[in-house]
Amino acid sequence: MRPTERTKVKRVPQRGIYDIEVINAILDAHFICHIGFIHEECPVVMPTLYGRKDDRLYIHGATTSRMLRSLQEGIQASVGVTLVDGIVLARSAFHHSMNYRSVILFGKARLISDGPEKWKALKVISDQVLPGRWEEVRKPNKKELKATAVLSFPIQEVSAKVRTGPPVDEKEDYELDIWAGVLPVRSMMETPIPDPQLKSGVAQSKSVLDYYNKIT
Amino acid sequence: MRPTERTKVKRVPQRGIYDIEVINAILDAHFICHIGFIHEECPVVMPTLYGRKDDRLYIHGATTSRMLRSLQEGIQASVGVTLVDGIVLARSAFHHSMNYRSVILFGKARLISDGPEKWKALKVISDQVLPGRWEEVRKPNKKELKATAVLSFPIQEVSAKVRTGPPVDEKEDYELDIWAGVLPVRSMMETPIPDPQLKSGVAQSKSVLDYYNKIT
Repeated sequence: MRPTERTKVKRVPQRGIYDIEVINAILDAHFICHIGFIHEECPVVMPTLYGRKDDRLYIHGATTSRMLRSLQEGIQASVGVTLVDGIVLARSAFHHSMNYRSVILFGKARLISDGPEKWKALKVISDQVLPGRWEEVRKPNKKELKATAVLSFPIQEVSAKVRTGPPVDEKEDYELDIWAGVLPVRSMMETPIPDPQLKSGVAQSKSVLDYYNKIT
Repeated sequence: MRPTERTKVKRVPQRGIYDIEVINAILDAHFICHIGFIHEECPVVMPTLYGRKDDRLYIHGATTSRMLRSLQEGIQASVGVTLVDGIVLARSAFHHSMNYRSVILFGKARLISDGPEKWKALKVISDQVLPGRWEEVRKPNKKELKATAVLSFPIQEVSAKVRTGPPVDEKEDYELDIWAGVLPVRSMMETPIPDPQLKSGVAQSKSVLDYYNKIT
């Protein structure tokens, strides 16, 4: 990716990354983004689920959603994805920091019309949250598909910013008797809670078992 | 809080919350927000740390930061804070959902000038990330304070949206042999990693010990 005026990382430029493989890896590690758009001359930020496949980022929602209706008009938008990896505790207040991986994307969304592309995009979003789930569940019927809008953003004007590693303090501060280091932050799924209305005798899904086998 | 045209939750309105105590509790449970603002006619979304005290939300950064320089001009901004609590697995693809707590705020930021208010605001941000850390570390000197801009947003035009509980499926789908339930998501800090350059003999900070004692 060649940085544009908008995607070029200005603050701490050595943290800026334009390598599409790194950008995709960050996008694939999460499923919640924050979308910024202008509605009646005001900026609005809203969280939503997303899925990434190839060079497209997909979002979905009710066709009646204000955000989706605004975005499908082809207005400029910005999408932010942020993973917090750690709290960086320095010896000085000033050098406290975060370890993180973030992506910021600029672009215009396109509404995906009914048909195979919409079906595939919905599967991409489902796979992003829990791989294998799509195959297990009742698929959307005509009415549900009609009630759902799916939009796609091109992953083109995009950059990442990453910080890793220990704190960096002023030279003279390393002599202070202050503990310094990193508190790693991790987001994880805990023991599944079955639906109280679960039909008796129904075993846990393969998608869920696979997920927990993978992380333990 | 009385909802305005901008803060009124339109999609699934029963999930909209305007109770300031609930809103503050959500804000206090996190420390990363996404800020949306307009820069050269385009929406931009950027992640940043924040702290909340009383009816103000504080952010900080380098005085040279493009975002902080834009915001201190008194332009309209939107701030989003989102906590993911669980992945809701329904029997139908359509009814899959997330359990979450989110806050969206609209308003104009104010630059806090040098002096006691700026000092207090920096402590609020520090306390939000790790209570007690501020007291342990070397405080900002004049040069560092000058290099740091602190802005505050009024927590006035604001609303929250919350989903909790099991999936809600179509009546006839409850008979399907598909596992349904919630995968709880939790963000947690793991074992601290000391700075490789930690001065020998320096014990772990009280702020860190207190944090880990609190969660275990």
